[in-house]
Amino acid sequence: MKKIGIGIIGTGFMGLSHALAYRAAAGIFPDEISPELICVADIDKAAAEKACQRFGFRRYTDNWQALIDDPEVDIVSITTPNRFHPEQALAAIKAGKHVHCEKPIAPGSKDAAIMTQAAEAKGVITQVGFNYLKNPLIKLAREMIADGELGEIISFRGIHAEDFMASPSTPWSWRLDPTGGAGAIADLGSHIVAMARFLLGPVVAVQADLETVIHQRPVSAGATELRQVAVDDIARLTVEFARGCKGSIEANWVATGRKMQLAFEIYGCRGSLHFSQERFNELHFYRTDGQGGHYGYQKIEAGPQHLPYGAFCPAPGHQLGFNDLKTIEIAEFLRAIAGQKVSGPDFREAWEIQKVIDGAIASAREKCRVNI
Amino acid sequence: MKKIGIGIIGTGFMGLSHALAYRAAAGIFPDEISPELICVADIDKAAAEKACQRFGFRRYTDNWQALIDDPEVDIVSITTPNRFHPEQALAAIKAGKHVHCEKPIAPGSKDAAIMTQAAEAKGVITQVGFNYLKNPLIKLAREMIADGELGEIISFRGIHAEDFMASPSTPWSWRLDPTGGAGAIADLGSHIVAMARFLLGPVVAVQADLETVIHQRPVSAGATELRQVAVDDIARLTVEFARGCKGSIEANWVATGRKMQLAFEIYGCRGSLHFSQERFNELHFYRTDGQGGHYGYQKIEAGPQHLPYGAFCPAPGHQLGFNDLKTIEIAEFLRAIAGQKVSGPDFREAWEIQKVIDGAIASAREKCRVNI
Amino acid sequence: MKKIGIGIIGTGFMGLSHALAYRAAAGIFPDEISPELICVADIDKAAAEKACQRFGFRRYTDNWQALIDDPEVDIVSITTPNRFHPEQALAAIKAGKHVHCEKPIAPGSKDAAIMTQAAEAKGVITQVGFNYLKNPLIKLAREMIADGELGEIISFRGIHAEDFMASPSTPWSWRLDPTGGAGAIADLGSHIVAMARFLLGPVVAVQADLETVIHQRPVSAGATELRQVAVDDIARLTVEFARGCKGSIEANWVATGRKMQLAFEIYGCRGSLHFSQERFNELHFYRTDGQGGHYGYQKIEAGPQHLPYGAFCPAPGHQLGFNDLKTIEIAEFLRAIAGQKVSGPDFREAWEIQKVIDGAIASAREKCRVNI
Amino acid sequence: MKKIGIGIIGTGFMGLSHALAYRAAAGIFPDEISPELICVADIDKAAAEKACQRFGFRRYTDNWQALIDDPEVDIVSITTPNRFHPEQALAAIKAGKHVHCEKPIAPGSKDAAIMTQAAEAKGVITQVGFNYLKNPLIKLAREMIADGELGEIISFRGIHAEDFMASPSTPWSWRLDPTGGAGAIADLGSHIVAMARFLLGPVVAVQADLETVIHQRPVSAGATELRQVAVDDIARLTVEFARGCKGSIEANWVATGRKMQLAFEIYGCRGSLHFSQERFNELHFYRTDGQGGHYGYQKIEAGPQHLPYGAFCPAPGHQLGFNDLKTIEIAEFLRAIAGQKVSGPDFREAWEIQKVIDGAIASAREKCRVNI
Repeated sequence: MKKIGIGIIGTGFMGLSHALAYRAAAGIFPDEISPELICVADIDKAAAEKACQRFGFRRYTDNWQALIDDPEVDIVSITTPNRFHPEQALAAIKAGKHVHCEKPIAPGSKDAAIMTQAAEAKGVITQVGFNYLKNPLIKLAREMIADGELGEIISFRGIHAEDFMASPSTPWSWRLDPTGGAGAIADLGSHIVAMARFLLGPVVAVQADLETVIHQRPVSAGATELRQVAVDDIARLTVEFARGCKGSIEANWVATGRKMQLAFEIYGCRGSLHFSQERFNELHFYRTDGQGGHYGYQKIEAGPQHLPYGAFCPAPGHQLGFNDLKTIEIAEFLRAIAGQKVSGPDFREAWEIQKVIDGAIASAREKCRVNI
Repeated sequence: MKKIGIGIIGTGFMGLSHALAYRAAAGIFPDEISPELICVADIDKAAAEKACQRFGFRRYTDNWQALIDDPEVDIVSITTPNRFHPEQALAAIKAGKHVHCEKPIAPGSKDAAIMTQAAEAKGVITQVGFNYLKNPLIKLAREMIADGELGEIISFRGIHAEDFMASPSTPWSWRLDPTGGAGAIADLGSHIVAMARFLLGPVVAVQADLETVIHQRPVSAGATELRQVAVDDIARLTVEFARGCKGSIEANWVATGRKMQLAFEIYGCRGSLHFSQERFNELHFYRTDGQGGHYGYQKIEAGPQHLPYGAFCPAPGHQLGFNDLKTIEIAEFLRAIAGQKVSGPDFREAWEIQKVIDGAIASAREKCRVNI
Repeated sequence: MKKIGIGIIGTGFMGLSHALAYRAAAGIFPDEISPELICVADIDKAAAEKACQRFGFRRYTDNWQALIDDPEVDIVSITTPNRFHPEQALAAIKAGKHVHCEKPIAPGSKDAAIMTQAAEAKGVITQVGFNYLKNPLIKLAREMIADGELGEIISFRGIHAEDFMASPSTPWSWRLDPTGGAGAIADLGSHIVAMARFLLGPVVAVQADLETVIHQRPVSAGATELRQVAVDDIARLTVEFARGCKGSIEANWVATGRKMQLAFEIYGCRGSLHFSQERFNELHFYRTDGQGGHYGYQKIEAGPQHLPYGAFCPAPGHQLGFNDLKTIEIAEFLRAIAGQKVSGPDFREAWEIQKVIDGAIASAREKCRVNI
Repeated sequence: MKKIGIGIIGTGFMGLSHALAYRAAAGIFPDEISPELICVADIDKAAAEKACQRFGFRRYTDNWQALIDDPEVDIVSITTPNRFHPEQALAAIKAGKHVHCEKPIAPGSKDAAIMTQAAEAKGVITQVGFNYLKNPLIKLAREMIADGELGEIISFRGIHAEDFMASPSTPWSWRLDPTGGAGAIADLGSHIVAMARFLLGPVVAVQADLETVIHQRPVSAGATELRQVAVDDIARLTVEFARGCKGSIEANWVATGRKMQLAFEIYGCRGSLHFSQERFNELHFYRTDGQGGHYGYQKIEAGPQHLPYGAFCPAPGHQLGFNDLKTIEIAEFLRAIAGQKVSGPDFREAWEIQKVIDGAIASAREKCRVNI
């Protein structure tokens, strides 16, 4: 089986998630190119060493350029804070490596444009970590919409609400660094914008309100010194889709109690869907023509008929976990590298997502509707 | 026991609902003034007669002024289309009758102002039919917020989505008559705005988008002739509360599959609540300090400790129904007439609610943020 | 409209529930005979007087025989503890009155037999208060099963669990009086046995275990003196239906946390249903042939297509309450008195239910399977 | 890091599941001994070869004894049909290998006894694949019960219902082979019996009814020839625990619509829990003393505070999947091999579980209560 060398930059939440998923991919998706963990980089060399041992990389480094230059590394996986994405991705592209970048792709759409154009010019394959799109039931939702099972789409309501920044004592971090881009609208909003586009297609206009709720945070955990927060905690958007319908979107990382409310409702003239990542092995479907004469939402449970659920488990209702979605993301990336149809989101799609985010920021600043 | 005479104008969905609730109130709330059904009016005299017989009114009429003038009628209940509310309410007030008016109070806030001022000048008691506020669990939610159980409030998300106008073949009706006011924002939006104000207090600004989805409807059921629709099917609002937090509101009567999604989430810095009228005997509560060391939403089930649930049933978890909320509304109105503290919403509160609706309409028209 | 005089014996939870429902029935079901509250009886005369004033009975008494003999009383409603049912019902039958009796019909099936035979010999109409069967969705479930939507039935699982006796400090009461019959198996078990029979037909054999969990209780609230408990707190049954399938039943009034878990699952070879009274406006339906190619339980929400929901509200999803089920029970009883087909459960059906309960008691005592 | 060699016998659902989990364990649990996939065996040599390539075993064989004898194999994982377990496990024990055996441990408790005694005599570590016990929330439930958060336990209700055998056209398979033991009571019942024992301790008596619903099945998929079914499709048990409480258990593999209803309710005098594997990242907890003055079940969501959730993901509410539970099972087995406290279930515990199953079979046959 063909092998492909993996280099991962960053060893935080997402760095570990990528390492686990690359390890798992070969077993779960044996038909794809087989990934091998070659090198891991972190500016904290001890963290790199620890990750190296834990996941079985061949080597580690505190120099991400060295990782990119490593001749055995074919794929560069970038899991660093957003502000580092452009420089690292461009270096990897320059070196002719395929790039797997965490979301959002960049601090803004200008960078995203440069990154996309560079990747396309070089002909490398790219993937951005919108893992929630990899849920078999989300693919089913997309197919149902495309197949007209909901009829013409009337309205969208999307939310990504969590509470990991809800406490005022949660300290300042790179997520709050304005040089890395916006706040909740970028961090969580990019997921629900990606979902909206995946299901319903392009967003052509946005009206947004961005709000900072907690204006100062400790410079570090437990510190008494406070640092001003310049990015949004909550974003509320009204969006217009190219297909003609409108919708609302909320991104909120101070939503006390909510751990993973990436949720949507889509209303069509013949049916509707509702979904929440809180119970992501379930998709709820309503049909106006009833189902055997009965009316009401049907709870579709994920099973092997929803590809690629069956790669994990042959029995329905047994449930995929969070990490499994990342594994699917990687399998599809490997498949794209092998020359099959790219399912993305690639850099170009991530750039489109970023344009919506930038549009929301501009709308909130200018207090007007902004065309994307 | 003191008796009070009831006259109801209108025999549609709400006319019947009022009649049932006035009948039920005396048995369930024996300590309140005892209502007696005196007269029912409908422009369709046969409908009035039928309602008269069904509910045991003493007489009926096709002349609503005659009902108002009936000396045995102490309370005039107005359940006609919105555009008739001002004239009928003002006549009732002029006659010194207490007024129970369905929501929204009037086609616009100008009328609402006149009605409020007339009622207050005359000293009659008023009540507007925001029945969902009468849910014991909604009162609990309000108390929890007032008592600080959620801490400082950070954000509100409110929805009232149903699908009774989702089919393009649903014909034109008085709900679409622009002389009666707006569409979904008035009909359903008034409920969720009332809820927002009840729980969190005044709304001081609004940015809104109003959308007509189905532009033409049959002039009547089955007709081929179509009539242009001038009012909104979906309204999407961003609102600002006087207390300092913001929120979003959606009113939608084309939400295929949703029958009663009057729902909200309220996030505070110490806790949060979520609720849907779809399961309105349940209120979900999260506390950041955990509950016995455990974290997660608690499903509070309605029971006799939540007044006035116990008037209906001494056992918890047995559940109130839709009509029971109307009965509570009436009991509280009767209590206000008896001189106890008014819990409303009275005309003044309904006027405030209408100002938010009018603000949303203005915002959508002018495409800017509007102060209330 | 034809009137019919009502006399209610007992003013506890069920006495009040009956009074409310008889009051409501006339308005909600105008086509039925119109009930008039004539007389209320309670051994506590003050309680009788209070109920009389509250609900508008014409008179009250502490002598239930006088109520039965009252010439204006056509229907005798018996809501006293079980041990009084036989004597009172037989007296009412003897007087030629129709009888509405709370469940369980009697302390045992011998009494139930005598009562049934007396009623049938006299030709009076009877009804027993199994109100949960009156849920429009339960009728739908029965129709779906009868129409073969589930295919041949394979298995039943039924529960009625509440927690009103879970605290050891809850005092001794008439529910624990062995002369009134069994404990949880009679009080709650009769409801789920009634449900099983309503949906699936006769039960022909039972194997049961009956357990007393709290062996002593205060003689009254707060008392230090304890009284021995002789009846069951939990009953666990395996049952066999005449149609050929088996099932399990649990009756449990010490189920801490559960307020109204009257729940069942029914599996057929082509589909299945699950239901809980905790959310009794919802019925969940699964079909093996999928629904539009999708698999999963469909949540059917109660609406006007499910008779007689529309008598309460023309809009789906607005929800019936606990008291509404009692109102339907009464309307159907009135309809039976008017000569239409009896939907019951009448005394004969209640006798059949009681046989299952007696069978369970015998099985538990003899530690063997008992044929009904 | 210390390495340990793995040999897996069988390449069906569980063989693949074991292989995936052994692969994943090293990355997710880096502190444990690091497993290496050495050899895979299957009587179908092509299947063995395919699995070998897919998961990266060093070699494959169609001779399971050769696998056991392989000097690099330290752990023998047995995922074959039940009737092969005793012979294979005893051979592995004889060779001094640690044994990881799928459940149920054996066709009956006699074999289980022999296997347990052999393993203990030889001093090898054993583990049986009751993966659902490895859910962090199940461990939490056990701790809550042990810590008295529910008070004295009153009652248990346990179910394991699926529908993979519900269709009469599902063919005969090794699961129906009576030489491998019983049917649903062994296959699914062993899971819920294991759960009951894990949470509440030993079961000392059982009364059971075992039922075959589908009496004949095609000899193979699509075949017209039918083969008689000798094992149970549904088992209904009443059980008694050594701690003094009772409960009911249902095992059912013809439960149309249910894919993974491994569910329980546990009632104590101070609180209760309910759980279903259908949403296994949630545990519902009720306290009689309320939670901040409020009553109702709290939905505890799995998070990093529930060990070892954090090994998979640092963020709460992101959810574990089915395969992750198997990975935890393996990590704990490796930990036991490393000399830490065995968390099991080991062969001895599996033997105890088997005794309950054998007791149920005997009870059903003899139609009487059986002491374990």
